[in-house]
This record gives sequence, structure tokens and C-alpha cells, in this order.
Amino acid sequence: MHDLYPSRHAATPEMLERHDAVVHGQWTGSAPISELQAAQFERDGYIILEDLFSDEEVAFLQRAAGTLLADPADLNAETIVTEPRGDEIRSIFEIHRQSAVMARLAADARLADVARFLLGDEVYIHQSRLNYKPGFRGKEFYWHSDFETWHVEDGMPRMRALSMSVLLAENTPHNGPLMLIPGSHRTYLTCVGETPDDHYLSSLKRQEYGVPDEHSLAELAHWHGIVSPTGKPGTVILFDCNLMHGSNGNITPFPRTNAFLVYNAVSNRLGKPFGVDKPRPWFLADRGEPAPLAVESGPLIEAAPA
Amino acid sequence: MHDLYPSRHAATPEMLERHDAVVHGQWTGSAPISELQAAQFERDGYIILEDLFSDEEVAFLQRAAGTLLADPADLNAETIVTEPRGDEIRSIFEIHRQSAVMARLAADARLADVARFLLGDEVYIHQSRLNYKPGFRGKEFYWHSDFETWHVEDGMPRMRALSMSVLLAENTPHNGPLMLIPGSHRTYLTCVGETPDDHYLSSLKRQEYGVPDEHSLAELAHWHGIVSPTGKPGTVILFDCNLMHGSNGNITPFPRTNAFLVYNAVSNRLGKPFGVDKPRPWFLADRGEPAPLAVESGPLIEAAPA
Repeated sequence: MHDLYPSRHAATPEMLERHDAVVHGQWTGSAPISELQAAQFERDGYIILEDLFSDEEVAFLQRAAGTLLADPADLNAETIVTEPRGDEIRSIFEIHRQSAVMARLAADARLADVARFLLGDEVYIHQSRLNYKPGFRGKEFYWHSDFETWHVEDGMPRMRALSMSVLLAENTPHNGPLMLIPGSHRTYLTCVGETPDDHYLSSLKRQEYGVPDEHSLAELAHWHGIVSPTGKPGTVILFDCNLMHGSNGNITPFPRTNAFLVYNAVSNRLGKPFGVDKPRPWFLADRGEPAPLAVESGPLIEAAPA
Repeated sequence: MHDLYPSRHAATPEMLERHDAVVHGQWTGSAPISELQAAQFERDGYIILEDLFSDEEVAFLQRAAGTLLADPADLNAETIVTEPRGDEIRSIFEIHRQSAVMARLAADARLADVARFLLGDEVYIHQSRLNYKPGFRGKEFYWHSDFETWHVEDGMPRMRALSMSVLLAENTPHNGPLMLIPGSHRTYLTCVGETPDDHYLSSLKRQEYGVPDEHSLAELAHWHGIVSPTGKPGTVILFDCNLMHGSNGNITPFPRTNAFLVYNAVSNRLGKPFGVDKPRPWFLADRGEPAPLAVESGPLIEAAPA
């Protein structure tokens, strides 16, 4: 297959044109977001959805997250990533298959229908995780486009995926919130160098390959600026797969937690990776025949009796 | 001398009462700041002074800072501190004795008269430095009270000193700006453990002793919150010597530079350190007989002909 988005091949970085739509669906009055929100997503590459969930639902999700972080012994050890220097959990992957609550969240109409509209297709979960940035010593996460990695290392052919970060703790300007470069999703910034085998083992802790160069990052940030959406628990930050993002460290006492869900169009299923021989493992990228997500409506309800 | 502010002696931290005034001068209509600003400094432990300097003066200071950072060969090598892992300059100390422009800045009436009023005394420069936090890889600076270190390691007897950070680059919420815990200056938080000799050699890069404990920091931050003053170049952040502060790392392309001046009351000159045998070196703390700063009025003017 001709590679529309080559990366990690050349000695110098390039800013390539995006060949895919940003909003793949056609907006009508029955769309799950407003026309303005769709236009914002098209222009900026992200939107913020507030007050989607009730206080009870947010508390329910927070309890579920707390249980996952507190009892990792019940989880598949492979899916747990710890801080670069330490045992503290940084991410738990594949939460939609390890937690009934997170599975229900991923299938929730308030999220999944937005993904279906923006991607103009049925969707499935390409990747899910619970992120935890501890207080006092949370490490930074350097700038990257998710799509660059998903394309090169996982074989995602086109830009027809998006991420949703469901905040489970308050994001303030101080506790290392997500930083986005609005509008950067329109440019595909290639990275230099090749990718070693099993790169994922270290890259989840500290990225060394597939890292954008400083000169191009400075250009993007000077053109577009940087934003840090902040918000209370329950806020959803929804962003395009090719939006440049990162986060600073966190020395505040306030940890940061979110449930992170990546929706991919079923027509955009993974093939052979474009830059490595061996694809990354199952818990980072669903490589199976995609089954369209069965969307569920109504409130998230605690399954277990009180 | 009885130690009013013992620290690094005990196995558990304590929150001790402050025994010194915050605003040592008596406000009158001829004070160099407003009555409201004096009350804010008393309550919060900091104030922001904006538009003190003209655009030309700010550009003049920025050029002087650029020269210091670009030509460190002309400086005393002892006064230069680099990043923990790298050669990039993080701080240059003793700038008021190594740069005529910085000496003039320190003596400027718009700064020095505010220090003289708040400290209720003639003042001298206890410490000065140029701070540079590079883009992309600027490291965090963990929470600390300056006074705790100045007392334990330098022998500053009382809380009658203050710091001014003159911003020489824009501080945004994203590029690792100063974070303050307003009101924390009223509490003296002791640190646990003892201080090794020549601790300063590593502590300027990464603090290991004199570090506040997480439990107390969390209490202070929950009580008082956290603020990050942001502002354009030329903005002055003025804060009490005992205010708890720190800063996150900086992955943005935007570096952060400031000229940092510590004014101490001449009546508060340094004695024998309260927690170590050997005081820190000359460029971190002026140990001489303090000469009252000769305040200079009028604009900062480029000394060299155009």
C-alpha cells in the first residue's frame, strides 16, 4: 500500500499535507453535537464536552478508577505501566476489557455517538487506558501526534480516529494538564530516524523515537499557540488523532486521572505497520476484525447491588 | 543565639508560627505602593507590579540578559549553574556584581524603594541571579521556602527579606511559571533530616535536603490553593522570603528568563548558619558588612553609545 504518511524514514523532518477529512460526517440537526462544535473540531482539532455526566455518574467512574489503581493484582500485568523511576502506576491499558464500568463508559451514547458522527462510520475501541499522573512527582509527557505512532508502529492507514479524555480529577493549569496545539492536526509532521524493535517497552515511559523535532514544534507553537483545557471531573476533552499534544510534569499535591478512549472508524482497521516489522502488542492496539461498538443509552448505573 | 526557626533537626516536620512582621514599614500616602498592595502582600505574601518599566527599558534588560547567557566566558565560572543533565545554563548568580545593567536594575528606585518600605529598613542585595528555563527540556524546581535555606545554610536570622523576579520573557500558564501558595508565608514549615556539607553543589540543581514533606505541602495547598502569576516581560513578581513556591518543568518551545533579586534588611545581616558548620559560598549569600543600597532614580539607560 502506498504510504500517504511516511515517517521515520528520512534524515530531516517534513510538514506534509493531511489527506483526510477532520469531520468525516455530514452535520445535520440530528447530529449529537452542535454545528458550532463540529466547526470548532474541524478548525482546532479538539472540543470540550462539559456536563455530559451527572455528579453520581462521575463519582461512579471515580470509584471504578480508584479500584483499578488500588487493586492492580486483578489486572493483566502486561497492561500496567509504571513511572520511569518508580513503581507508581502511570497507565493501565485495555480498561474497556478489564472493567465492566469502563466498557460501559466506552459504549455510552454520549461519547460513542459523537465519535460515530465525527468519524462518519461505525466505530470500535482502538485503545483504552486509565492515566494517572501522581502529585509531587508526575513526569512530563513530550509532544507527539498519536497518529504518527499508530500509523508507523500499529499500521493505522488513515486519519479517521479520535481520542476522548474523560477527566476523573480536576485539571487545573498547575497539575500538568494536557497541552494542545490547536490547528496542528492539519499538518502531518514527520519524525526522523528509524524505530527499534519493541520500542513500546520504553516509549510508554519516555519517548525516544517518533519524537517531533524542536524546530518544527516551535513553528507550530508560534503559529497556533498552546492551550490547556482545564475542567472539573467529568469533563471530556475530545481531540483528533493527529493533534500535537503533550503535558508538563506535576509537582503540585493534586494528582491527575483520566479515562482515555480511542475510537477508530471500522473502515480504518489496522494493517501491516508502516515503519516497523513487528506490530505493537494487543493491549496497545486492537488488531482484530473490528466489531462495531454496540452503543448503550441511558445513565451509567452501578451494576453491583449497593 | 536562640533559634526561632529551627529546621532539619527533628524526625518529623512541624508548622511553626512566624515571629516576624510581613510588612515591616508603616504605610502612609508617600509609600511607593498602594495601601491595597501593602495589604495584599501582608495577606498573600506576594504582589505583582506591572508596567514599571518602559518597552525600551525591558528590551534593554533583555539584551543584557542575552549577553550574559551568550558569553558566559566573561563570567566567574563558579557563579554559573547548568541543567542537571546537560550544559545549558540554568542560573547565573551574582549578576549585580557582574553586569552594570543588573547592578543598575537592583538599585532602581522602582524596585529598591518598594523593598525599603516593605522591609522597613535600608536594604542590600543578599543574592542575585539570572534564571533561564529553556524550552522543551526545562526541569521543575520543587517546592521550598527560600528563608528555610537562607536561615539553615546561610545564617539569615529573621524573616525580613524578599525576592523580586523581573520577568524577561513572557510567563504563560504553560512554560513552567513560578507557582506560589498564597498565605503560606505565615507558617514556618520545618524540614526533616540534617544537611550534608557542600550541599549547595547539588541543591542548586536538584534539592534533596531542606525539602518540605508531602503531607504538609498537601495541607498548605488545600488550605490556600496555588497561583501562577503570568505576565509579559517587565512584570515584577515580588514575594516574601518565607512563601512556599516552586515551578513545573517546561516542554513548550518558549523559554523563561528572569532577573532575580533578593533584598535583605541591613539589620538582618547574616550570622553563623543555624544548621550547618560551613556557610555557603559568597555568590549565594552576601556575608559582608551590609552597605545600604544607593538607590538610583530615573530610567534605566543604555550606558554604551548607540
